[in-house]
Amino acid sequence: MSAHPLEPSREQLSTWFRQVETTVLDHLDGMATADSGGPLGEAGLALADEVSTPLPDEPLEGGLTEVLRLVGRAAEATLNTTSPGYLAYVPGGGIPTAALADTWSNVFNRFTGLAAAAPALCRLEADVLTWLAHEFGYDDRARGLLTSGGSLANFSAVVAAREKLLGEDVDLRTATAYTSGQVHHCIAKCTRLAGLPFANLRQVDVDDRWRLDPDALRKAIAADRAAGQRPFLIVASSGTTNTGAIDPLPELAAIAKEEDLWLHVDGAYGAAFVLCDEGRRRLEGLGEADSITFDPHKGLFLPYGTGCLLVKDGEDLRRAHRVGASYLQDFDALDRSREAPSATDYGPELSRDYRGLRIWLPFMLHGTRVFRETLAEKIEVARYIHDELVELVEGGAPLEIVAEPQLSIGAFRLKRRDGESLDDWNRRNTRLQDGINDRQRVRLSSTNLPVHDGAAFTLRTCVLSFRTHEEHGRKFLEDLRGALEDLT
Amino acid sequence: MSAHPLEPSREQLSTWFRQVETTVLDHLDGMATADSGGPLGEAGLALADEVSTPLPDEPLEGGLTEVLRLVGRAAEATLNTTSPGYLAYVPGGGIPTAALADTWSNVFNRFTGLAAAAPALCRLEADVLTWLAHEFGYDDRARGLLTSGGSLANFSAVVAAREKLLGEDVDLRTATAYTSGQVHHCIAKCTRLAGLPFANLRQVDVDDRWRLDPDALRKAIAADRAAGQRPFLIVASSGTTNTGAIDPLPELAAIAKEEDLWLHVDGAYGAAFVLCDEGRRRLEGLGEADSITFDPHKGLFLPYGTGCLLVKDGEDLRRAHRVGASYLQDFDALDRSREAPSATDYGPELSRDYRGLRIWLPFMLHGTRVFRETLAEKIEVARYIHDELVELVEGGAPLEIVAEPQLSIGAFRLKRRDGESLDDWNRRNTRLQDGINDRQRVRLSSTNLPVHDGAAFTLRTCVLSFRTHEEHGRKFLEDLRGALEDLT
Repeated sequence: MSAHPLEPSREQLSTWFRQVETTVLDHLDGMATADSGGPLGEAGLALADEVSTPLPDEPLEGGLTEVLRLVGRAAEATLNTTSPGYLAYVPGGGIPTAALADTWSNVFNRFTGLAAAAPALCRLEADVLTWLAHEFGYDDRARGLLTSGGSLANFSAVVAAREKLLGEDVDLRTATAYTSGQVHHCIAKCTRLAGLPFANLRQVDVDDRWRLDPDALRKAIAADRAAGQRPFLIVASSGTTNTGAIDPLPELAAIAKEEDLWLHVDGAYGAAFVLCDEGRRRLEGLGEADSITFDPHKGLFLPYGTGCLLVKDGEDLRRAHRVGASYLQDFDALDRSREAPSATDYGPELSRDYRGLRIWLPFMLHGTRVFRETLAEKIEVARYIHDELVELVEGGAPLEIVAEPQLSIGAFRLKRRDGESLDDWNRRNTRLQDGINDRQRVRLSSTNLPVHDGAAFTLRTCVLSFRTHEEHGRKFLEDLRGALEDLT
Repeated sequence: MSAHPLEPSREQLSTWFRQVETTVLDHLDGMATADSGGPLGEAGLALADEVSTPLPDEPLEGGLTEVLRLVGRAAEATLNTTSPGYLAYVPGGGIPTAALADTWSNVFNRFTGLAAAAPALCRLEADVLTWLAHEFGYDDRARGLLTSGGSLANFSAVVAAREKLLGEDVDLRTATAYTSGQVHHCIAKCTRLAGLPFANLRQVDVDDRWRLDPDALRKAIAADRAAGQRPFLIVASSGTTNTGAIDPLPELAAIAKEEDLWLHVDGAYGAAFVLCDEGRRRLEGLGEADSITFDPHKGLFLPYGTGCLLVKDGEDLRRAHRVGASYLQDFDALDRSREAPSATDYGPELSRDYRGLRIWLPFMLHGTRVFRETLAEKIEVARYIHDELVELVEGGAPLEIVAEPQLSIGAFRLKRRDGESLDDWNRRNTRLQDGINDRQRVRLSSTNLPVHDGAAFTLRTCVLSFRTHEEHGRKFLEDLRGALEDLT
């Protein structure tokens, strides 16, 4: 019907939608038995060369079929973050129904940065954020902001804290923030982006379970005050990436109160567990924080591109982000007091994708209970893996457990041999990890953790995909045993 | 097949995909005759109350049908940013084929923050960014970053400039940046987010075509240097939101060079016009900038959520954003030198949506020529509107042209009557705008522009949707004439 090439006919578009539908449904059919990642390294680079295609003046020959072939090939060289055996980094399940929301959002393409321009759509987003805020222990003063991920959520929290406690008239070289050495590296990036020198993010010691040590924190703050610095922010983790450690939130909240500091909790990986009873118990004190980051693209199993910041007193966030503009004046004639909050008043963006629908629609379509139950199951699977590891160790396997899961991440490694050099030990652990991953059923990733003479290569298991069940924990344990045998 | 509720059966998912397909195709069928926005204000608030639905424990009764009904209702109270008569703010066409990309990305859900984890997918994204960088006048040293929109692209540019020219050891209260008073308000937000006091973004005078005045800029820089401040950044606009003004890029580039400052160009709205011959002529000097923001969700007609930053020397961007982490060590074993650039090394995000496919796929499916031609047509439609306005004025209509389109934005208003108060004048212009918008065929938005005794309400026309053709310009002119008659 339409003459413009960017507005294909209904028939053409329908054909294209069906092609993509078939592609993704076929892909999902294979998911239960999918391995956890194709070739990276050399093979991946070769594949990159293979699929790279000069941008054509005219439509690519072969049309969408060829386009999907190229992208499908490209996907062969990836970590399969959505596969059930993926226990590396933090899994990203990507529930398929989120695609329904994005298809609607892309085609309707409404501007949702200001509630005045789309009051009812922004209300649906606000409904989700309000619900989440209450689940996390906040009251109606709270405000939420959907971001592309945890990094930008953490950044907006840092900015809100800076704005509230330091204001404009301060030399940021005197401002100091506190976190554990186990925190996600994006916190260092965030404080630097916000104008602090890297060194002003103080790394405080942790206890034997990798949790920020409150006494060490007190001392660090006191030392900085004595030196004329201006402490303003504590960043705790509720589930570190390395070992899943939950910092002692109630104690940290008390310190923040005494010292008049902002307490932010980076729960990008772990805070969503508050939605299930067991997780809520373990995350005691979370609601006392001034702000919380959590990633719906992790703990709510959504596709990448969905982070969330919750701030206990929404006005703190608004004051740090609201800027007016003359070309937006038409909206000022409307009654803003009864509107849903506008994302642009609470974060750095103006135009943005309508992220709200991506959460709202799956909650509506599946209900909230299944999310709670699925999170509870992840804790159980992680517990199962841990119990089996303990049994292995007790049975004489040359392993040591480095971190018992505080939520769904655990860490372990080969025990160091008497007199073994750090390098040799790390090499053995690297080989152990390769031995597991090369079996292509589960995938682990590693980290470094401090030991007396350096940093020890340590294996992690992170259970978070909605597709990962006890059977995949069992596969991991089988492959661990196999890899251990191969090592000896 | 699958037992897990978050993994519906193939049949169920297919049914859902088809329902959404029908919804969006029906919506597109009505687009050619769609009006430019449903009820906002009171009616919008009422609709927000109507659609608001408590988050259910169990799947919502009525399932996806009810979900789509609610969202469809909610969409009735929105600015229809995608309709052909939408000339307000900056239109967002949202080419439907972008939805194909997001459906694939959502379901495959690959981690594309680090090229090592998805080398071939990241290569496709890099291919688009390299192509764009060349189109914008950059060479192979350039790097691009896809963001959620112009605000965050501008922010990363500010940070790169701050990092390169000031480094860590500076009191940011002494750092100053320069822009015109016509710049987008997000620049003030960006510099504040990056740690500068608001006042340190100096607003320099403009000439009679709303372009930053190079002489005034020189004076402002000299004054700051004399006062001990540390100038580091000029932010020019290539297409202001207010009037579409293009700052004099060659002169500004020369000043930046002389003064050793970073020149950033905010071309969120306008820089994409470089893809067509006429636009490239008008944007002379763009490639001399150190960095350029442009929004594919504006000038490439993509759905919201797709911004882009291009930096002439990619290393400047990388140095401002690269932070390592022990839990990413597995990637360090790979050969990074031959990989595509990793988004996380060049911007604030780690996990993020796979934005690259959203641009790559439409370019492949439609070819690049149609994008160039469509942009050229927008300049022509804006020129047509301007010529007709000139004729109206010459024929005695009580209008004044405030800004002739430098790209595709124009501005005009009722002429002020002798002795008329500013308030009365502004009220008459508000009524003129309402008179046009109430006809529901086209939609304009307004801005304020300085006059000797304050700020004058000024109407804008922004032609940018791929759906907006000369016929819609004609409708606007008919409705303008009608509204003018109604006023008298």
